[in-house]
Amino acid sequence: MAPPEDKPEVAEEFMAEKRSISTIVIIIAMQAEALPLVNKFQLKEDLDSVFPKGVPWVRYYGTYKDLNINIIWPGKDTVLGVDSVGTVSASLVTYASVQALQPDLIINAGTAGGFKAKGASVGDIFLASDVAFHDRRIPIPVFDLYGVGLRQALSTPNLLKTLNLKVGKLSTGDSLETSPKDEASIIANHATIKDMEGAAVAYVADLLKVPAIFVKAITDIVDGDKPTADEFLQNLAAVTAALDQAVTKVVNFINGKCLSDL
Amino acid sequence: MAPPEDKPEVAEEFMAEKRSISTIVIIIAMQAEALPLVNKFQLKEDLDSVFPKGVPWVRYYGTYKDLNINIIWPGKDTVLGVDSVGTVSASLVTYASVQALQPDLIINAGTAGGFKAKGASVGDIFLASDVAFHDRRIPIPVFDLYGVGLRQALSTPNLLKTLNLKVGKLSTGDSLETSPKDEASIIANHATIKDMEGAAVAYVADLLKVPAIFVKAITDIVDGDKPTADEFLQNLAAVTAALDQAVTKVVNFINGKCLSDL
Repeated sequence: MAPPEDKPEVAEEFMAEKRSISTIVIIIAMQAEALPLVNKFQLKEDLDSVFPKGVPWVRYYGTYKDLNINIIWPGKDTVLGVDSVGTVSASLVTYASVQALQPDLIINAGTAGGFKAKGASVGDIFLASDVAFHDRRIPIPVFDLYGVGLRQALSTPNLLKTLNLKVGKLSTGDSLETSPKDEASIIANHATIKDMEGAAVAYVADLLKVPAIFVKAITDIVDGDKPTADEFLQNLAAVTAALDQAVTKVVNFINGKCLSDL
Repeated sequence: MAPPEDKPEVAEEFMAEKRSISTIVIIIAMQAEALPLVNKFQLKEDLDSVFPKGVPWVRYYGTYKDLNINIIWPGKDTVLGVDSVGTVSASLVTYASVQALQPDLIINAGTAGGFKAKGASVGDIFLASDVAFHDRRIPIPVFDLYGVGLRQALSTPNLLKTLNLKVGKLSTGDSLETSPKDEASIIANHATIKDMEGAAVAYVADLLKVPAIFVKAITDIVDGDKPTADEFLQNLAAVTAALDQAVTKVVNFINGKCLSDL
């Protein structure tokens, strides 16, 4: 039997599942991935930022159909001028966004590497079933599991079926390339796709009890012949267009629905 | 010539350097490292937490001499029950602590691996001169530098001289063990010591313009014969005692001084 103090929280969760989704936060690591969607949804940049002074994080916001949409991009590194990719930035902007905006749902969208041995091709759009890290090896019992950090994405069977997206496990690490040890961990994670942010977004979403989904478009084949960085840069523009189409379809599907309808 | 709008900020920074340090935040990843210091400074746990509901982060606080001391420990993983080590947790608690407490100085204290080839021995206490990541390999120009994320610690020549601490470069990664690629990056970082949080704390401190120092005690020799995890666990208790003595000396030295006196 559940202790009595759990009841209000359970009731709250039940109500949230039955209420139409109102506010969504879309976390996107790269400007090239974010801007087409900002234009598509006709969002405005939040110049009086909800974030602290001095951080490069950018929020684009607006109303689209019945949704309050926030696209959060961690911005350019203040010294080096490149997109603030990776798990540290992703976790910080996810945390700050949830604190400021209290979203009903987080969508982490972005490009990713894919494994052809697991059925991925360049241009494919995947929805991650679960996410884990592949570069946090801590060979002490239980800490090893903490390092892997396996978490489930929100289950969205109707979304998957309607949009006919591919499904696969997502593995996250802070390197664009992989080392043999990373590769062994990716195999242990049964991953079809590989990115640099997903498991960090999932960690924070789980910590703050916000459901999250992961929409990833394949720019490069990790187990292929081409160097990852070359293939990534070559395919970025075309694949970003496919990603943005997919995210638009996902947002259209979400509109007017509650979490349990997804 | 600096544009006129820069002047108030410069003046503010100058004033901060000339004002006695009042509030410090000490970020410590493991409970075993934190609790002896909590007792030493007679700190209390903040039960009405400055952090959001549901996160495992713990703040111990109190007044010691003329200082408001906050020891922040990211707590036990809510599912697995192990200390929330690594860069994602460290960056989140550093961010949330700075937002809530506006400290004058951050001290990241903890155990670390050391390289005997660079002069480190088990039990040594190091102050890091600078910090960088060794597991964020992004082989695209400028992104490569972003991945390494090299940052200087606050320069503290008087502290170093008075306490007779060792100085070395600190390299951070999310694995307790290392891979050959990690090792190559650690060598490229000229690191004497290796931890799992420092560069993430430095990243957030830099983002939010709070000076930070890094006090690290050597539990294991990375370029030695013993497996890291075994050596780490074997030496943790004894080295933690040495770490706590060193942090106490650092705090005593800081008391009553301004940043520029350090």
